[in-house]
Formats: sequence, structure tokens, C-alpha cells
Amino acid sequence: MADVLVLNGPNLGRLGRRQPEIYGATTHAELADHLVETGRGLGLVVEVRQTDAEHEMIGWLHEAADASIPVVINAGAWTHYSRAIGDAAAMVPAYVEVHISNVHAREQWRHVSVLSAGATGIIVGCGLGGYDLALAHLASLRQD
Amino acid sequence: MADVLVLNGPNLGRLGRRQPEIYGATTHAELADHLVETGRGLGLVVEVRQTDAEHEMIGWLHEAADASIPVVINAGAWTHYSRAIGDAAAMVPAYVEVHISNVHAREQWRHVSVLSAGATGIIVGCGLGGYDLALAHLASLRQD
Amino acid sequence: MADVLVLNGPNLGRLGRRQPEIYGATTHAELADHLVETGRGLGLVVEVRQTDAEHEMIGWLHEAADASIPVVINAGAWTHYSRAIGDAAAMVPAYVEVHISNVHAREQWRHVSVLSAGATGIIVGCGLGGYDLALAHLASLRQD
Amino acid sequence: MADVLVLNGPNLGRLGRRQPEIYGATTHAELADHLVETGRGLGLVVEVRQTDAEHEMIGWLHEAADASIPVVINAGAWTHYSRAIGDAAAMVPAYVEVHISNVHAREQWRHVSVLSAGATGIIVGCGLGGYDLALAHLASLRQD
Amino acid sequence: MADVLVLNGPNLGRLGRRQPEIYGATTHAELADHLVETGRGLGLVVEVRQTDAEHEMIGWLHEAADASIPVVINAGAWTHYSRAIGDAAAMVPAYVEVHISNVHAREQWRHVSVLSAGATGIIVGCGLGGYDLALAHLASLRQD
Amino acid sequence: MADVLVLNGPNLGRLGRRQPEIYGATTHAELADHLVETGRGLGLVVEVRQTDAEHEMIGWLHEAADASIPVVINAGAWTHYSRAIGDAAAMVPAYVEVHISNVHAREQWRHVSVLSAGATGIIVGCGLGGYDLALAHLASLRQD
Amino acid sequence: MADVLVLNGPNLGRLGRRQPEIYGATTHAELADHLVETGRGLGLVVEVRQTDAEHEMIGWLHEAADASIPVVINAGAWTHYSRAIGDAAAMVPAYVEVHISNVHAREQWRHVSVLSAGATGIIVGCGLGGYDLALAHLASLRQD
Amino acid sequence: MADVLVLNGPNLGRLGRRQPEIYGATTHAELADHLVETGRGLGLVVEVRQTDAEHEMIGWLHEAADASIPVVINAGAWTHYSRAIGDAAAMVPAYVEVHISNVHAREQWRHVSVLSAGATGIIVGCGLGGYDLALAHLASLRQD
Amino acid sequence: MADVLVLNGPNLGRLGRRQPEIYGATTHAELADHLVETGRGLGLVVEVRQTDAEHEMIGWLHEAADASIPVVINAGAWTHYSRAIGDAAAMVPAYVEVHISNVHAREQWRHVSVLSAGATGIIVGCGLGGYDLALAHLASLRQD
Amino acid sequence: MADVLVLNGPNLGRLGRRQPEIYGATTHAELADHLVETGRGLGLVVEVRQTDAEHEMIGWLHEAADASIPVVINAGAWTHYSRAIGDAAAMVPAYVEVHISNVHAREQWRHVSVLSAGATGIIVGCGLGGYDLALAHLASLRQD
Amino acid sequence: MADVLVLNGPNLGRLGRRQPEIYGATTHAELADHLVETGRGLGLVVEVRQTDAEHEMIGWLHEAADASIPVVINAGAWTHYSRAIGDAAAMVPAYVEVHISNVHAREQWRHVSVLSAGATGIIVGCGLGGYDLALAHLASLRQD
Amino acid sequence: MADVLVLNGPNLGRLGRRQPEIYGATTHAELADHLVETGRGLGLVVEVRQTDAEHEMIGWLHEAADASIPVVINAGAWTHYSRAIGDAAAMVPAYVEVHISNVHAREQWRHVSVLSAGATGIIVGCGLGGYDLALAHLASLRQD
Repeated sequence: MADVLVLNGPNLGRLGRRQPEIYGATTHAELADHLVETGRGLGLVVEVRQTDAEHEMIGWLHEAADASIPVVINAGAWTHYSRAIGDAAAMVPAYVEVHISNVHAREQWRHVSVLSAGATGIIVGCGLGGYDLALAHLASLRQD
Repeated sequence: MADVLVLNGPNLGRLGRRQPEIYGATTHAELADHLVETGRGLGLVVEVRQTDAEHEMIGWLHEAADASIPVVINAGAWTHYSRAIGDAAAMVPAYVEVHISNVHAREQWRHVSVLSAGATGIIVGCGLGGYDLALAHLASLRQD
Repeated sequence: MADVLVLNGPNLGRLGRRQPEIYGATTHAELADHLVETGRGLGLVVEVRQTDAEHEMIGWLHEAADASIPVVINAGAWTHYSRAIGDAAAMVPAYVEVHISNVHAREQWRHVSVLSAGATGIIVGCGLGGYDLALAHLASLRQD
Repeated sequence: MADVLVLNGPNLGRLGRRQPEIYGATTHAELADHLVETGRGLGLVVEVRQTDAEHEMIGWLHEAADASIPVVINAGAWTHYSRAIGDAAAMVPAYVEVHISNVHAREQWRHVSVLSAGATGIIVGCGLGGYDLALAHLASLRQD
Repeated sequence: MADVLVLNGPNLGRLGRRQPEIYGATTHAELADHLVETGRGLGLVVEVRQTDAEHEMIGWLHEAADASIPVVINAGAWTHYSRAIGDAAAMVPAYVEVHISNVHAREQWRHVSVLSAGATGIIVGCGLGGYDLALAHLASLRQD
Repeated sequence: MADVLVLNGPNLGRLGRRQPEIYGATTHAELADHLVETGRGLGLVVEVRQTDAEHEMIGWLHEAADASIPVVINAGAWTHYSRAIGDAAAMVPAYVEVHISNVHAREQWRHVSVLSAGATGIIVGCGLGGYDLALAHLASLRQD
Repeated sequence: MADVLVLNGPNLGRLGRRQPEIYGATTHAELADHLVETGRGLGLVVEVRQTDAEHEMIGWLHEAADASIPVVINAGAWTHYSRAIGDAAAMVPAYVEVHISNVHAREQWRHVSVLSAGATGIIVGCGLGGYDLALAHLASLRQD
Repeated sequence: MADVLVLNGPNLGRLGRRQPEIYGATTHAELADHLVETGRGLGLVVEVRQTDAEHEMIGWLHEAADASIPVVINAGAWTHYSRAIGDAAAMVPAYVEVHISNVHAREQWRHVSVLSAGATGIIVGCGLGGYDLALAHLASLRQD
Repeated sequence: MADVLVLNGPNLGRLGRRQPEIYGATTHAELADHLVETGRGLGLVVEVRQTDAEHEMIGWLHEAADASIPVVINAGAWTHYSRAIGDAAAMVPAYVEVHISNVHAREQWRHVSVLSAGATGIIVGCGLGGYDLALAHLASLRQD
Repeated sequence: MADVLVLNGPNLGRLGRRQPEIYGATTHAELADHLVETGRGLGLVVEVRQTDAEHEMIGWLHEAADASIPVVINAGAWTHYSRAIGDAAAMVPAYVEVHISNVHAREQWRHVSVLSAGATGIIVGCGLGGYDLALAHLASLRQD
Repeated sequence: MADVLVLNGPNLGRLGRRQPEIYGATTHAELADHLVETGRGLGLVVEVRQTDAEHEMIGWLHEAADASIPVVINAGAWTHYSRAIGDAAAMVPAYVEVHISNVHAREQWRHVSVLSAGATGIIVGCGLGGYDLALAHLASLRQD
Repeated sequence: MADVLVLNGPNLGRLGRRQPEIYGATTHAELADHLVETGRGLGLVVEVRQTDAEHEMIGWLHEAADASIPVVINAGAWTHYSRAIGDAAAMVPAYVEVHISNVHAREQWRHVSVLSAGATGIIVGCGLGGYDLALAHLASLRQD
């Protein structure tokens, strides 16, 4: 199994097509390939998944909890209301919350996250590069 | 493919059975038939769908975004919290938000909609006739 | 007397001159002619009025209450604070609240309406076509 | 000139026709006659007026200020937002605020009054009899 | 038994000694005598009581509920928090809420009353004369 | 001494007489008899008390604290403001908070409880049967 | 079909593994067996289900509505935001809301429930025993 | 026509009579004469008007919009609620908002202005001299 | 009579037994003896009382008001809601508010005091020593 | 010493370089020269200072207080939180608060000022010309 | 080094000159001498400092932290916003927060302190004597 | 000059001594050395500074603005209130906001940042490693 799961939430499968001025032109498949590559450089087997279904995201978090592996999570809009995902994430040994855009520079409701209080780290507004930083952070934690 | 998608959210499959004093006695199947008919009169191929699953609604909105066709959406109770559907709807070229009952005459939490800010039009409290008005509005926009 | 009164509030006499990017280039006189025409197509005698004076609007609502005829009302900025018009509207047998622009996409204070709780229907953001939809809705109610 | 002005605001000319279950069946003309009679019993010349126009109400309050006579005022829905009437009332030597119905048992926005802080007395929910009590109170103040 | 109970709450036994610039120089005993007299003039047997103990006030309200007689109540500072007295008052056939001073011209917390929503009438800021007005109002209700 | 104290607060002595559509027709004495019976079935000596006096309720809680016995408490309207009772209850080894009616379906101020954060269990809206459930719960805790 | 459905929401399938200091060591399967047993003792056929998918929970509530059978529901974190489940639950003849832990002793957002206003009963903080109490309550309602 | 309109709102016709400790002893007619004089010194034809009627103020703003001339406006208490005047002012090429007294040192509700967001300049608490400053500012803008 | 009354409110009779980690092991009787001693050192006759009954506390404050002697008051949980005690305290010539624990380091509701605005001094979080400081402060005021 | 101090706060030394579309192209040195010139025209010796250090601003206000000379102050972002500067300004005989841009048309947090309640005058959004108006106002006050 | 640092914040150097009706006529130098004297009586070497510079106050708190000595702090207006001082104070072994005036009887914003939650004791409204009480409290803590 | 400035705010000079359970045992000097090293690996000349003085931080941001170099900033407690630093940071070409601890898991007031809306990136809760991530992010931006 993977050393790290990268879990993307709703509408992130549209990367490359959705508001490219905010999210860039890279597709989700390209992002996934890139992160597997990044992981390899860090000595980590990385697996990248995306879903628009809350229960699937919850299931993946349970999977990570059972396997005791850390998670990089961009829960998309669920970030702002899905307490069920928040409860599931709390079972994982460690997770880094990532947002591609700077949510604090956008609508008020994007400023609040149900995931932040329990996060191991939070990386916001660094574009797709934020995922790389998150992986680097998890890699550094493994070394401690 | 259809010219317009009419997308109904959770519990709207119960039309005719749920609180008939608020929502009337027409079933969802009858509503769908009626709207196809209305569309025909307006020169529009209309397709009506209903789901209780957030990810299915998101998928249909992505479908409309890809096909670049407008949407009439009654997101039911999701209207008041599903930011994921709000983000998905923002990708569609145009959508009219419909509510059968007058949500502003009911509980406080029904007064707030995550869909309204991005809507092309909003039609509230006109009963099932509100869908007809929404289709008429989209038809008129096509003529411009 | 008319079958339906269309009552427009403050600054709507400036249609065609005020922020045309929001309200369009049609003048109030042209709108009035158009709605009389729309009414004729629906079998309704429509009368269109506009005022910047709160007491005149209240008086017209009393007139509709006495004659027991329905109203289409766009109360402009009064929508957001004139409880006196709200009380007067509550005496009318039925009224449809119309807003030309999508008030939910503008300033926060435009999101709250003192008219909505008592309205028979609410049509927002459909441009001047919203008045046509409102008349169509009142016509359909007469047929029931 | 009168010893006391009784000033009624918007929609109160509809007494007897508006929501009789709340406001009763007496018309405004009948109320006026009754209060003149009540005044006579108290040794006061009472004049009763009603208007739906904010500027007319303001003008009457200026008139009372100039003549230095007290006022009984039921500002109707203006009670809840017309700061201009609040400022005008503050110039009058004394005024009793009257509400026919119990505004605290109705909608939240009726619980706040821009007139109360400056009032000589406030009488709420005593029906039309509240005006009689207000006159009695002003009569008793004259005796001091 | 009495036809009307006048029930005064905490610190009102200090009338004449407490902040005379707000409450006047009349003592509670003098007020009680005066109100018995007022009642006599109205054909009512009036009984006046005062207590600083919440449970005693609740007991008196139960007594009024059992005897089905109306109440004039000035609950003093309990007005602003004692929900227990609010619940007890709701059992009485009718009650008029009285405040000697204009609570709306004083601290913010005095503006909110747990008694107002259920009151038959509310008389504020008319000084000790407010009790007379309350009795007059209850007398007029008996005549209907 | 008793194994469990059942402590009822203000106005609950009026059971059977107060709003029977909400609270039912059983009197407090009948309830007390019934709960003693219920306790017997559970092997518990139950004592039921009622008071309208805050200090008496506080004293009973001190008594339970000294004797180290659990409490079933329905603090009536005190639930929503009496922090003194809240502090006293915190000294008891365990307490179950009971409300006969569904307080969350009533006024807003009944939704907040100063007792809930410290409670061993909370049973709401189950009618008088809620007391039986509370006793059953305390009995089951004894068995652990 | 069952006489009662016990419906558990997201993350409750993790019972026994999730925060045992809060939720205990019993697994969901063991809980289900226990509740079937409890039901048998009460003369009720009980069926216990668990899902992490909102649409599945909605479907089960529709099923209960169609069959007109009561429900015991622990909606987990959905309790605090899923208005869609709230609307679906409102169609069921009766439902008891259960929370294993005392949600009022935890984070602020766990204090608000979209299910409480419509519930037949609410049982909080009684551990897994809360389900037994809920079944006992529904059994007692059947006897009336 | 004038180069600048100075528009005063409700109760400002009472200058010299209303709260002289706040507003001073100068009458509105004297102020008007003074400002015409000030304008002359600045090379501006100034016209000063006052009204207690919202619709008249709106009309004057429309007049300024049509003539494309700037406005100095003291909307009195309308400042704090008349969104209709706010919308009308937004049509004027430029306007300076003036308040004679320091509204931020008075009641809380005087701290909020519906005119400020759109103003070219805001001058508060400089007494009647504030009008002179406003004219000076508009004169300086003409020179740019 | 005493020179100073020290008045302790609800649950303070439990000193030494209630949460000793917060309130310490000294009993109320020991505290009283100690404060009498402290007073003696300061040349003050000190009398210490404790009650769980709001009306008794109110009575003692009236007593101090009549005798015109200052008070040291720790109103316990009443501090946060008993406006009746707040009104009574306002009649006393001077009072120092004492809290044994640092209420600002505990629950949010303990941060607000209905006594503070009128206090001569406020001493928080100094343990039982806070009473000594309060007496010292009153002694120093006597010397001025 | 100067007759008037003009005191500019943090980041105002960057005038001419910071957001020229908001603050213009004039540098602080040029502004200072201009205001000395303006002062000369008004018969005032004007001294202009700028600092990014709160304690320096406080010291200058103390200096003005000691010398009893008025101040024109633009406290920049300190306006919105530095209560220490607010307290210092309150010691000065008179001060005019100036903001170059219209703070009410920018972020919400710029709408609140800790200086306004105590100001002699407030001039907002008049560009650098606002300083000239402030000096003119102080000059006119000297003449009274 | 000193046994106790007394640290005064902004504007406190103005003691004797600033609002003597609130702060008294004693200067800061006199206060410092007095407190050294008080300390001597308590067996403590006391050092008194005052600054208007936040970084200096922070530095002094670091100094106390390094030397592990307790602090008496009156942070003046910083009390209400300087989280940097709050963080620095949290490093000190113990500190007593002092306010000369009763901040709870003044503006709303003075009611909130960023220092209170971490304080060893809080002494408010006891005038300059509050410093003496604070020293006495720290002396008593040393004895434990 | 440096390619990147790393700017640390108040109390961060205490790294290694302040709450090591939150901030770790590394000192600021060690952190600075480490970051210079990290920068070298990224091909960046990094300069690390720390200050407890707001004006010094503002000055450094002006320096970065003039030199047009990006900044990594951990403003410590200023993050939550220093609008002056927020305004200064807005002049810098790019800045990454860093917090060592997870501020969203601590006090409520640490959840709000005046720097976030304008940041190029935000990295929270990654310990001292967060600075490395920030440098890596700025390095990657240079490559684009």
C-alpha cells in the first residue's frame, strides 16, 4: 500500500477546466502523475485519488486510519461544512490540509475550515505546489 | 442531448407525498412530463432528473458545464449548505434557481441560499409553475 | 379598473438612464407599454405606475386592497427598509415581488427584503423579463 | 389650537378594514370621534390626524414643537425605522407612544422602536383603549 | 378575594428611598393605599403585594391562576431574566406589565422583558400613574 | 436515605393544570408516586421533590453531593438562566437532565441549558416517561 | 418488515475503533445484535443499519415514511448540517434522536442539531444505552 | 442653473430652533445666504434647498444627475436608513456628505451611513463650517 | 452594627468541599473568622454572611443601604445574571466585588458581571486573600 | 513652537510610492511643504511630522497637550486599533481626524475609528486636500 | 535585581495631568516612590517603570521571565488589543493586572482585556491603591 | 542584498525558551543559521531578522518593497491586530505568511489574521519546517 494518500474532494476532478485563472491549467491526472513523481523523490509511495462523493472520501479516510498512514487532503468546498469528513479525518494519524488558491482572499465562507483544528499542517494559496510542500512536510515528519 | 437540464435535489422525488399542503399533489414523474411538454412549446428539449445524492448532482452540473447548456435547479435542502454544489453550479453557463414554496415564509435557515449569488435568475414561491417560468426565462435568453 | 397593478418604487423612473450595465437601456415608459402588451396577451388589463414617494406607493396598495386585485411590485430600495410598505402590501390579496437585477449578487443589505415573507411569488435577476414572468404567474393563478 | 395632538401613522387610516382580528372593527373616523370625546371628559381639546406620508408626520411634530403641546403618537411601521420621525419627536415637549396590538408578541422587527428612548410614556397592546390611557396620562401630567 | 392582584417585585419595597429622581418619593405603602383607592373608584377590589423572593412571586401568580383573576405586575429586575416568573405569569388569565421608569431610556439590558410577549398590555415610563392606567385597562376589559 | 433524588423546579408543581396540551394531565403527586414505583422495579429508593425556590433546589443538590447520590433534575425555566443551580449541580456525582416537552421545538430561549454541559445524560421531549428513562439510565450506571 | 429502524450515520461504523474514551469499545455489529435483543424484549422487531452516505440515509427515511414505522436516528456529524436529512426525517411518523456522547460538553458546533425541532424525543450522553432508552420510549408510545 | 446643489434633509429646516447646544443658533435661511456667499467667493453658483420629504430629495438628486452637477448633501436622519436616497445619490457625478455634529460621538445608530461608501468626500463634526469646507473641496475638484 | 458587611452568595457555603483545586480547603466558617480578624487589624468591625437565597442577599444589601455601611460582595453565580441583586447593590454607599478564582480564565459566561459597572473596586483571582485586600481597600477609603 | 501639528502615522511616509491610484503621486515631503504653505496663508505656523512608531506618535500628542495646541492627525492603520493613541489624542485641546482615501469605500475594518468619538472634526476621502480643509477648520475655530 | 517589577504602559507617565477626575493628582514619579516604600514595608525590592513603547514593555516582560520575578502590570490601553504583550506576559512566573479606574464603568471596549485570562490576580477600580494591593498580594504569595 | 527576507515578530526571539512544548527547543539564532543554509540549497541569499518593535518590522517591509524582494513573515501576535503591518506588507512584491504552531487549534483570537488576505501563500502548523517550505515556495516562484 501507499505511504501517503493524497485525497482531493469535489470539483477538483475539473482541474484544468474550472476557473483556470484561479486553479491553473494542469489537469487532475497530470497533478496525480506529478505528485507520484514528487513522492518518489522523497522516498514515498504516493497515491492520489479524487471524488465528488462524501461517503467515498470518508471511506478513504477510514482506510488511512486502518493502515495508519498520513494523508494530504484538499476537501474542496466540503472544507467549509462537512463535519462528517472532519470527524473521519480526526481518526487519521496525521493530515496536511491543502488549498490551491488563497481562500482568505475569496468569499467569507471560504475562510472557515472544519479541518484546520485537527490538522498536522495547513498550506494555503501556494497553487499546485502546495501539494509538493505537503508531501515534503510529511516526509520530514517521517525522518524525526 | 437536451437544450436544458432541470435538476431536482433531495426529497423532491417525494413530490405528491411530502407535505402536500406545501408542495401540492403532483408527483415528480408528472412534473417531469409536464416540463418536457412546456419545453416543447418553447422549442427546447428539456430533460428532468432528480437525485438524493450530492455527488450525482455535482456530476450532472459538470455534464452541463461540458455540454455548455443551461440548467434549472431546485437543490432542495442542499440550497442552504452544499457549497460543493454551489461550486459546481458556478461552472455552468447559466442557471435559474427555483423553489416551489416561499422559503422566506418558512424557517430562518431556508432564507439563505449558497446558489443565489451566482444565479442567472431566481424564482421562489410560484409552486410547480416556477419551473415553467424558469424555462420561459431561459428560452427568452436564447433569443437574445 | 385594471386586473393587475404593476407598481414600481424609487429610482425606477430612471430606467434606461441608471447604471445601464445593471438595469438595461429600456425606459420606464417603454417597460410600461411592453407590460400592457404582455397583459393583453394573457387576457389581463395591466396598469403600470411608478413613484418615488412612499405614501403614494402605500396609497396604491390600499387601492389594490379595496379593489381586491393582485399586484406586481418592485419596491426598489424600499424593499430593504420600508416596513410601512410591507404592512400595506400585506393587505393586498396577492403580490409578486420582482427585482430586475440579482440582488443576491450585490451589496449585503440588498439581500434582505421586508416584502418576501408575505409574497405570493418572488422573481429575482431575470431582468425586465421578470415582470413578464410575474404577470404570467398571476394569470396562471386566475385560472386555478 | 388643540391641547393635545393624536398623530397616527401609515396604514392606520385602514383601521376597521386591516386585520380586524388584530386591530378591531372600529374605523379611524370613529376612533377620532371617540378620542375627542375622551379629551372633553378630561378637559382637553384633542385633535386626531392620520397620514401615510413621513414628511407630513414630521411637519405635525414641528407644529407641536412650535406650539409646545404634547403628542400621542402611533407611528405604525415607521416606529421601527424612521429615524427622521424620531428626531422630530425629540423636539416635542412630551409624547406618549401608543401601539394598539402587543408588538412584542409579533415579528421580531416590531420589538424595536426608534421612539421609545425619548418617550414620556409607552402604552402597548391595550387596543384602542391605549389612546384613552395615553390621554389620561397627559391630563394627569398637566395637573402636576 | 380580590378582583385584581397588583404584584411588585424586588427592590420595589424601597420606593421613596431608591433613586428618587427616577422612582419618586412615594413609598410602597402609600402606593398600595392609593391603588386600593383607585380600584374602589373603578369598582374593583385591589390587593397590592411586594416581594424580593422569586418563589413568593411565583406562588402569587399560581394563586391568581387558580382564582382566575387578572394581575398587574411590575417584576422589577426579574423582568429581564426570570423565565420562571415568565412561565408562571403565562398561567394567569390576563396581566398588565408595568414599569415606573422608561426602561428604554436606561441600560440596554432593561430593554428586554421576558414578560412582554405574553402580556395583555404593557405600560412603561408613566411613573406610579402607570399602575392606575393598568387598573383602568383591566376594568375596561371586565366591561367587554 | 434515597438512592436517587428526582428534583423538579419552578411551576412543575402545576403539572396537570399547566398547559395540559404540552405537559399532560398527570399531577405532580401522581408523577411522584409513579416514579417511586418505577424505582422499586429498578431496585432503587427514589425520592421526588418539587420547589419554586432556587435556594431550596440548591440545598437539595448540596444534600445529594454530601450523600454522594445521583440526581434526576428537571429545573424548569431555571434551566435557561440559573447559573447558581448549574454550579450546585456540578457538585453532584451524576445527574440526568430531563425535560418533559421538546424544548427545541419551542421558543429560542428554551434551546439553551446551563445544566447540559455537566450532565451525565439528557432526555428531552419524552413526556413524563422521560423520568422513567432517566431512572433506568442511572440504574444501569450502578450496575457497571 | 421491522417495527423500528435504528439508523446510524457517518463514522458510526467505526464504533469500537474511534476514540474509545468517548464512544466505548463495543463495535457496531455488537451494538446491532444488542439492539435486536433489546427490541425482542420489548416486543419489537428492530433493524439496525449504518451508512456514511447521505443519500442512503435519506432513502432509509423515505422507506420508513412509506412503511409508516418509527425511527431511532443517530445522524453523527450530519446532525449539525445536513438539512436534507432533516427534511427527510420530518416525513417519518416519529423519530427519537440519539447521541452517544454528551454533545453539549464538546465543541460548540456539536450543540446545534437540525433534527431536534422535529424529534419525538432526544436522548443525549447516555452512551450506547441511549439506544435502549430510545427503543423503550418508542415501545411505550405504541402502548398508548 | 446652479454649479452646486446643497441639499438638506429632514429637521434641518429647524436649524436655530433644534438643540442649539448641538446645532447652533443659525437658521436655515441664514445658512443658505451664507453658503451662496461662500460659493460666490469660490466662483460657484450655489443653490441651497431643504426638505422633509424623501421623494423631494430623490427628485433633486435626479435633477443633479440630469444636469451633471455635484451635490453637497446633509441627509439628516435619512443618512442612517434611506437606501432610496443612497441609490439616488449614486447617480450624481460627485457628492460630499456633511454632518454638522460629530455623529460618532452620539448614539450608535448615527455611526452608520448609507451614503458614505459612494461619497466623494465626507466632512463630519465641523459645525456649519463643514458646508464651507465641502464647497471648497468641490471647487478644488473643478480646478483639476 | 458592623462597619463592613462581607456578603457571600450561592454555593460559597461549600467552601472547602467544592472543587478544592479551584477554591482551596478553607471552610466558610474559617474564612469568616479570618476576616473578622483581618477587620480587627484594620480597625473595622466585620460581619460575614452567606446565603443561597437571592431575597436574603437583597435584604442584606437593603440593610447596608439603610445603615449606610460599605459591603464586600462575592455574589457567586448570581454575579452573572441576578439583575435584582445588581439593583440592590446600587443602593449601597460602596461595595467591592470579589471573586476567589480568576473568572476570566474559566467559562465565557463567567466573564460578564452585573455588579462590576457599579462597583467601588473589583478584585479577582487572588484566592481567599482577595477578601483581605477588599477590606484593606475599604479601610483606606475610610481614611480619606 | 508651531500653532498646529500635523501628525501622520504608519506607511504615510510612503506617499507617492504606495498605491498611487489611491493615495496619489505627491510625496510626504511635498505634502509637508504644501501644508506649511497653506498654514502660512491662514496665519498659522504648521509643523508636519510622520512616524511608523506608536510611541513617537503618543509622545507628539503629549507634546501638543503640554503646549495646548491643536492637531491634525492621520493615524493611518492605527486609526483602527491603537487605543493607546486614542487615549493620548483625548488629552489634546482639539484634533481633526483626516483620511486621504474614502475609508468607507474600502475594507470593513477601515470603517471603524478609535479616534472619531473624541474628534473636533473628521474629514474623509478628500485626498491630500483634506489636510488643507482641516487646517482651514482649525483656523476658523481660532477666530471664534 | 528587584523582587517585583511594576510596569506601567502608555499614557500612564501623564498621571497627575491626564483626566485628574479619573486618575487623581499624583504623578508617576510620586507613585513610583510610594510603591518602592510600600514594597519596603512588605520586604520587597520594588522597581517601577513606565513606557509608551510596546517593544520596551515586551522587553521588560522578557527580563522578568529570565529573572523569574513576578510583575504588577497596568498596560493602559494596550490591555485591550496588544496580543504581543499578552504573549510576553504569559512567560512571566506570575503577574497581577491593575487598572486605576473602574474600566467596567467606562466605554465598552475597556471591558475586554487580553491580559486577564493569564493573570494571577486582577485589581480594578481601586485607584492608585490598587498597586499597593497588588504588591500585598504578591508578598502573600511569596510566603506560601 | 538578500534575495529573500525572513522577518520574525514579537516574542519569536524567545524561541527555545518560550513554551517549548509548542514552539520547540531550537533558538532563533539556530533557526536563522538553518534558514540561511536552506536558502543556499535553493540558490537564494536569505537574511533572517527578528524584532519586538512594530516600527522596525514596518521599516523592513518598506526596505523589501524598495528592493522589490519577497518576504517570509511570521508576525507573531501582531498577526491578529497590527493593521499597520498589514498595510506595509501589502507593498511587498510577494510574501508567505508562516505560523510555527497550528493557530487554528489554539485560542479563538489566533484564528484571524490581518495578513492572510494579501499573502502569496500561508503555511501553518508545520513547526520550524514551515519556514523551509516557505523558502522552497518562493524559490519555485522565481523559476516560473
